[in-house]
Amino acid sequence: MELGLLYSGGKDSTLAALLLEEFYDVTLVTAHFGISDDWKHAHETAETVGFPFDRLECDPDVAHEAVDLIREDGFPRNGIQLVHEHALERLAAREFDAIADGTRRDDRVPTVSRAQAQSLEDRHDIDYIAPLSGFGRSAVDRLVETRLDVTAGPSEEIDRADYEAELRALIAAEEAPEAIAEYFPDHDQTSVTNVR
Amino acid sequence: MELGLLYSGGKDSTLAALLLEEFYDVTLVTAHFGISDDWKHAHETAETVGFPFDRLECDPDVAHEAVDLIREDGFPRNGIQLVHEHALERLAAREFDAIADGTRRDDRVPTVSRAQAQSLEDRHDIDYIAPLSGFGRSAVDRLVETRLDVTAGPSEEIDRADYEAELRALIAAEEAPEAIAEYFPDHDQTSVTNVR
Repeated sequence: MELGLLYSGGKDSTLAALLLEEFYDVTLVTAHFGISDDWKHAHETAETVGFPFDRLECDPDVAHEAVDLIREDGFPRNGIQLVHEHALERLAAREFDAIADGTRRDDRVPTVSRAQAQSLEDRHDIDYIAPLSGFGRSAVDRLVETRLDVTAGPSEEIDRADYEAELRALIAAEEAPEAIAEYFPDHDQTSVTNVR
Repeated sequence: MELGLLYSGGKDSTLAALLLEEFYDVTLVTAHFGISDDWKHAHETAETVGFPFDRLECDPDVAHEAVDLIREDGFPRNGIQLVHEHALERLAAREFDAIADGTRRDDRVPTVSRAQAQSLEDRHDIDYIAPLSGFGRSAVDRLVETRLDVTAGPSEEIDRADYEAELRALIAAEEAPEAIAEYFPDHDQTSVTNVR
């Protein structure tokens, strides 16, 4: 069965790929808005970890809407949720038997409720799978430690391709690079460099 | 890492074992109350699918409490939930790094909330994992179809070892065999006969 997994190059989505590869033909798919070339980082990581890769072109209007939300809210949560839902809809419209993402049990954002999952499945006649949603933060950390080599650091210094990179670029363009820190408080991101 | 998985011999807990074996040293653990020998069916299935097996002795008082609940309610949901929580507590007290069960996204019972999972983890210093909680019914059915051979039929005709078997035996003893059908409306169970 062909499965498309929303992929950032980070530890969660890479671990999700390892969990699913036993059961599905997994393609790593990175959503992008055509705003920056950050998707290329995910492509490189996908080659390193040994999975087929594809891009998922998303609607730039949604990125702008997300940035408006983030600036209005003063925090990124709702904007990131909006983008994630849009990316899942686009992915579900592709020719896969199943789609998946790297959301974990303890994630606050993005989240996909049981009702949203069922709706995606019914409307697109696919399975939606969240392979890490039964794993807590500490279980994920332990698995990452045993199976992946990662670099970690502040979001702006890590080469990966989650939605944040392009949303940050938009905010920098619309306001100023300094504005980014205001909306995205410090948090570490990871980029996978090797699978053991 | 050593992981103990609550095991019935059915398709869900067998699939959970296959998902986890890439990352953990999985032992299949069947809870029983010493009321019947139904745990032996799970032992046979564990040997067929090729995993180490262990028994988990549970408190017969909890089985009696569950049966009282089921007879009072007229349906098995709360009684089964009570037994599942008790079994998880007992399993968490064992010497495993992680424990798991076969609960799925679309299951109504048993369920383990995020708060219950966190509480188990904090109190016992283990990881609790629900590897199928990110899989819906249709995704599970498709995986079962590709990987497992199963026999399916009404609960009373299938040799497996979930909590129902012993609770049914208690009800038959306390009332009459005919009473079982009143509390457990028809539903099909599965027993795994082979892994492909």
